[in-house]
Amino acid sequence: MNKKVAVYRLEHFNAAHRLHNPEWDEAKNQDIFGKCNNPNFHGHNYNLEVRVAGEIDDKTGYVFDMKILSDIIKEHILDEFDHKNLNLDVPEFKNLNPTAENIITVIHSKLSKAINNSQLDLRVRLYETERNYVEYPA
Amino acid sequence: MNKKVAVYRLEHFNAAHRLHNPEWDEAKNQDIFGKCNNPNFHGHNYNLEVRVAGEIDDKTGYVFDMKILSDIIKEHILDEFDHKNLNLDVPEFKNLNPTAENIITVIHSKLSKAINNSQLDLRVRLYETERNYVEYPA
Amino acid sequence: MNKKVAVYRLEHFNAAHRLHNPEWDEAKNQDIFGKCNNPNFHGHNYNLEVRVAGEIDDKTGYVFDMKILSDIIKEHILDEFDHKNLNLDVPEFKNLNPTAENIITVIHSKLSKAINNSQLDLRVRLYETERNYVEYPA
Amino acid sequence: MNKKVAVYRLEHFNAAHRLHNPEWDEAKNQDIFGKCNNPNFHGHNYNLEVRVAGEIDDKTGYVFDMKILSDIIKEHILDEFDHKNLNLDVPEFKNLNPTAENIITVIHSKLSKAINNSQLDLRVRLYETERNYVEYPA
Amino acid sequence: MNKKVAVYRLEHFNAAHRLHNPEWDEAKNQDIFGKCNNPNFHGHNYNLEVRVAGEIDDKTGYVFDMKILSDIIKEHILDEFDHKNLNLDVPEFKNLNPTAENIITVIHSKLSKAINNSQLDLRVRLYETERNYVEYPA
Amino acid sequence: MNKKVAVYRLEHFNAAHRLHNPEWDEAKNQDIFGKCNNPNFHGHNYNLEVRVAGEIDDKTGYVFDMKILSDIIKEHILDEFDHKNLNLDVPEFKNLNPTAENIITVIHSKLSKAINNSQLDLRVRLYETERNYVEYPA
Repeated sequence: MNKKVAVYRLEHFNAAHRLHNPEWDEAKNQDIFGKCNNPNFHGHNYNLEVRVAGEIDDKTGYVFDMKILSDIIKEHILDEFDHKNLNLDVPEFKNLNPTAENIITVIHSKLSKAINNSQLDLRVRLYETERNYVEYPA
Repeated sequence: MNKKVAVYRLEHFNAAHRLHNPEWDEAKNQDIFGKCNNPNFHGHNYNLEVRVAGEIDDKTGYVFDMKILSDIIKEHILDEFDHKNLNLDVPEFKNLNPTAENIITVIHSKLSKAINNSQLDLRVRLYETERNYVEYPA
Repeated sequence: MNKKVAVYRLEHFNAAHRLHNPEWDEAKNQDIFGKCNNPNFHGHNYNLEVRVAGEIDDKTGYVFDMKILSDIIKEHILDEFDHKNLNLDVPEFKNLNPTAENIITVIHSKLSKAINNSQLDLRVRLYETERNYVEYPA
Repeated sequence: MNKKVAVYRLEHFNAAHRLHNPEWDEAKNQDIFGKCNNPNFHGHNYNLEVRVAGEIDDKTGYVFDMKILSDIIKEHILDEFDHKNLNLDVPEFKNLNPTAENIITVIHSKLSKAINNSQLDLRVRLYETERNYVEYPA
Repeated sequence: MNKKVAVYRLEHFNAAHRLHNPEWDEAKNQDIFGKCNNPNFHGHNYNLEVRVAGEIDDKTGYVFDMKILSDIIKEHILDEFDHKNLNLDVPEFKNLNPTAENIITVIHSKLSKAINNSQLDLRVRLYETERNYVEYPA
Repeated sequence: MNKKVAVYRLEHFNAAHRLHNPEWDEAKNQDIFGKCNNPNFHGHNYNLEVRVAGEIDDKTGYVFDMKILSDIIKEHILDEFDHKNLNLDVPEFKNLNPTAENIITVIHSKLSKAINNSQLDLRVRLYETERNYVEYPA
C-alpha cells in the first residue's frame, strides 16, 4: 500500500442568503437569527476548502489531479452557488435553512456523489467570514 | 508643525447587492453586468479600510483616536450597511447602482461629514473580494 | 442522529508576557528562554480559534449559535486576557509559565466549564505569531 | 501523564520544479501534467507547516522548543530545498516526480529522522500555492 | 467631471527564474545575487496587483470593467509568464535580468499598450514573496 | 535617467508597551488611553513594511539589494525593539509615548540615518494589529 496523503483545494463563491425558520413567527426568527434574518437578504464571500485523502498513485505522483478536482468543484458547486441567492436560486435550500452548517453538509453530499470513489476520504470546510467557519465531517 | 502621519482602521460588513441600470433592457444589463445582475441578488464580505492623515497631537501621541474612528465608522457605515441589501435597504442606492466604485464614494462622503475636520485628509478603500477592490480619492 | 459538524470562531487579544522558571537561576532561564525571558516583558497579538463539534439542531440549523459562542469567549477569555500582562494580571499564570502550550490548556479548561455541554467536543488553537501556534487537545 | 498539545511552526522556501514521468512519452506527459510539464521548469513559494504533538514538559512549559524546531527545519529542509531546482539539485527527486504529494512525504521522512523521538507525533503540511496544499500523514 | 476612483485587480502566476549579469564572472554574480544566482533556477508564486484610476462612468458605475481587466491581464501577462521560466521562455528577459524591479516595468509596459487609454492611470505592484514586493511607477 | 521603482520589505517584531502621559493624572490617562494604559503593559506582534523608491541600477537590476535592506532593518530596528518593552528598554521612548504614530516616526528617523542616501525616498508603515496601522510620511 502506498502512503496516504491529503490534498486540499481552495475555491470561492459569492452568494446572498437569509436565515429563517418558517415554523416560527417573526419575533422568534428575529430573536434567534438577529440581523441574519433580514427579509431582503445579506451576503458573503464564501471560501470553500475541499480535502481529499488517499494513496499516492505511482505513475502520476498524485492522490487526485488538482485540475480535475477544481473542475468538479466548479461544475457541482460554483456553477450552482456563485452569484446566487441561496434561498431563492438553489433547490437544496428551498426547504432547508442555509446556515453554514447546512450548506457544508449539502456541499459534502454533492461532491461525494461527483467524486464517487470509496478509496478516497472527503472532508470540506466553509469559511462564511474570516472569523466564522464550519467543517464536515467533524 | 508636527509630523504628519496617516492612521488606518480596517472594518468589515456583509451585504447583498445587485448591479443593474434601469435605463437599459434586460439583455443589455445581462451583457454588461453578467451574473452580478442576478435579480435575486448575491453578496459579499466587504472589508473597509479608512485612512486619516494629519499631524500628531503632542498630548496624546495620536493623529486620531482609533477607538473614536472605529465608533464613527460603526455609526455611519456599519449600522447602515451591515447585513443589509444595499439596493433595497440603503437609501443612497435607491437610485445609484451599488458598484464598488459608487459604494466607496458614498462611504467617503458619509465619513467626511461625520469627521468634519479640514485638518485631516480622508481616503477609503473597499475590498469587495480578495481580488477586487477600489480606492477613493484615486 | 443528525449530522455532526464542527463550527469555528476566531477571536483575538493583545497581551504582554515573560517566560521564566523561578526554580532556575538567571543563566539557566536565559539559556532556555532566550529573549523571551526579558524581565521587562514583551508581547503578542494572540489569535484564538475555538472549534465546537456537535450535531446540527433541526430547528436552528446551528451546532452552536456563533453569537453566543463569541459572547462566551469574550466573557471568559478576552475580558481576562486582553490588554493584560499574563504573568502579573491573570491569576492562572501566577504560578504557571505562560508558554503558548500552557495558555492554550488554561483557555480550554475555562471554555469547557463555560460551555458545560457533554454533547459537544471542544478544541482550541492559539496563534502566538503567524509562524508559531499550538492546539489542544492534540 | 501531562497534557498533550500540538505545536506548529511555519517556514518557507522558494524552488523550481517540473512534473514529468520518464516512462511516458511527451504527449502523455503533456496530457497528464499540462503546463506543469514545462521542460524549462516553473516555480513556487512553498510554505511548510510542521506539527509536533506531545506532552508539555513541566520545567519548560514546552512540548518542543520552537527555536530548536526551527533550526532542525532549516538544517534538514530549507538548506536542502530553498532556492533550488528540486529535479536537478535535490537527490531525493532524481528519480521521484516532485509533486506536492511526493515532496511532503520526503519532508516527513527527513524530519522524522532528525527529530528521532518516538514520544512525539509529526505531521507536515505543504502549501504549493494559496489554493493547493497537501498534508501527511492524512 | 465625475469622481476619480482607483480600481484594483489581483492576479497570480508561478514562474522559475535566475538572477545573473552576463558581463560579470561567476564570483561577482555569486557575490551580488547569492542563492538567487543558482544556474538551475528557483521559483516563486508571483502575485500581481493592477491599479487603474479614472472617472466613474455614469451608465455602468464602473471605472473599468473588472472582467475585461482580468481578461487583459490574462492575455498579456499570465499567458506569457505563468508556469514559465522567465529567463528561457519569455522574450523580454532574454537580455534583461528578471529581478522584481525589471519584471514590474515590463509588466507595466505591456499592460499600458494593451489598455491604451490616456484617460486612465496605471500602476502595478508585484509580490515576489510575502515579504518582498515592488511597485511601478514609484 | 532610469525608471524609478519602489521596493518593499516586510519585517516583524514582538514588543510590550503602555500608553501614558506623565503630565496627566491617572483618571485622565485612563479616560484617553483606556485599557492601553494598563500599568503592567500589554503587547503586540508588530509588522513593519519598509518602502524604498529610487532608480533601477543597470548592473544589478536592483533599486536596493533586499538582503542589505533586511540587514539594515535588523540592525537598526529589530535588534533594538524585538522582544523588548518599548517604554522601559528603548531609549527613544523614555520620554515619548509609544503610540503607533510615535513609533513609526522614530523608525523612519533611524532608518533614514542608516540608509543615508538622498537619491532614495523612504516610507514606512507599521501594523500594530491587523486592523490598526500607521504610515509615515503621510
